[in-house]
Amino acid sequence: MGGPEVERLIALLAKLPGLGPRSARRAALKLLTEPETRLRPLAAALTAAVGAVRTCRVCGNLDSQDPCAICADPDRDGAVICVVEGVGELWALDRAGVHRGRYHVLGGVLSPLAGIGPEDLHLAPLLARVEAGGVREVILALGATVDGASTAHWLADRLRPLGVSVTRLGQGVPIGGALDVLDDGTLAAALRGRRSA
Amino acid sequence: MGGPEVERLIALLAKLPGLGPRSARRAALKLLTEPETRLRPLAAALTAAVGAVRTCRVCGNLDSQDPCAICADPDRDGAVICVVEGVGELWALDRAGVHRGRYHVLGGVLSPLAGIGPEDLHLAPLLARVEAGGVREVILALGATVDGASTAHWLADRLRPLGVSVTRLGQGVPIGGALDVLDDGTLAAALRGRRSA
Repeated sequence: MGGPEVERLIALLAKLPGLGPRSARRAALKLLTEPETRLRPLAAALTAAVGAVRTCRVCGNLDSQDPCAICADPDRDGAVICVVEGVGELWALDRAGVHRGRYHVLGGVLSPLAGIGPEDLHLAPLLARVEAGGVREVILALGATVDGASTAHWLADRLRPLGVSVTRLGQGVPIGGALDVLDDGTLAAALRGRRSA
Repeated sequence: MGGPEVERLIALLAKLPGLGPRSARRAALKLLTEPETRLRPLAAALTAAVGAVRTCRVCGNLDSQDPCAICADPDRDGAVICVVEGVGELWALDRAGVHRGRYHVLGGVLSPLAGIGPEDLHLAPLLARVEAGGVREVILALGATVDGASTAHWLADRLRPLGVSVTRLGQGVPIGGALDVLDDGTLAAALRGRRSA
């Protein structure tokens, strides 16, 4: 239907989270029927993003500036670092607007079953940030999964000797829940209710 | 979050049918974290589509060739034209694989309330195709709405004098549909359209 260009567009759209084959077809049709107001702008936005967006060398966030807008913001409290699994979790937490410190993206959690060890994550840069001084508290904002909890435990054991307060997210995170699908209120409650790890 | 390029990408993705602000954010993140395998190919596919896809001058389908692959297919029965409201309906019907004739896209249905009259739709080209001869049957595959039904009525009145058979889609219980969740109108249509078992 529509030729090879259309089929390829549908196949790529169908791989996006939230879209399946049927909704990808509807999305492609919507784009194709309004090329000037939808298709061209989206193509331009993707091209602009691929050229502009990079990984922040300090925290691992994705942004069009490096260091990212959060790391470069002088109004952010550099003494409080919130450790997250990925950029999705960082965005979700920051959208909730309750954390006014900085972040650190681990790029995953420790998972012996999946063969993910400390050397596969951005753990050393986090320890280096804390060792460099000026950090008062590290908030371990990891998911309430087995791997997330054991990663938090592993990190707490290594961070406490460095003389920082180590806390975890408290009430609000459902067991087995992923952070990036939670609503802002739950995220805010979890951040406010953080406990000593 | 992520800078103006990312925000613009999320805003454009969120306008696609099937995606909202939250899923658009997840989709953007997925694209940005895998730029080489996802973001670049999608940008390229969109650019290729905007350059390649056009409206078929015969039937109104969207395709990378004009006349479209269906109109150009010699194995298709040109004596049977299936009239649809839009390209989405054309694709849905053709995916079902039961119609081996050609199509005609109206670009909408008549709607006095919305101010859509015969001059706003591709009605004259349909009449011209039938008048040119070689057409045996016109299937009016329009939605079972008030506007769809009145458009079918209007078209049937103009097509029958041209000496073609004019048919409409059968109405009734959808395949796999449970009776107790259907609306009264569908149940009434199913009962009226009953056939020998």
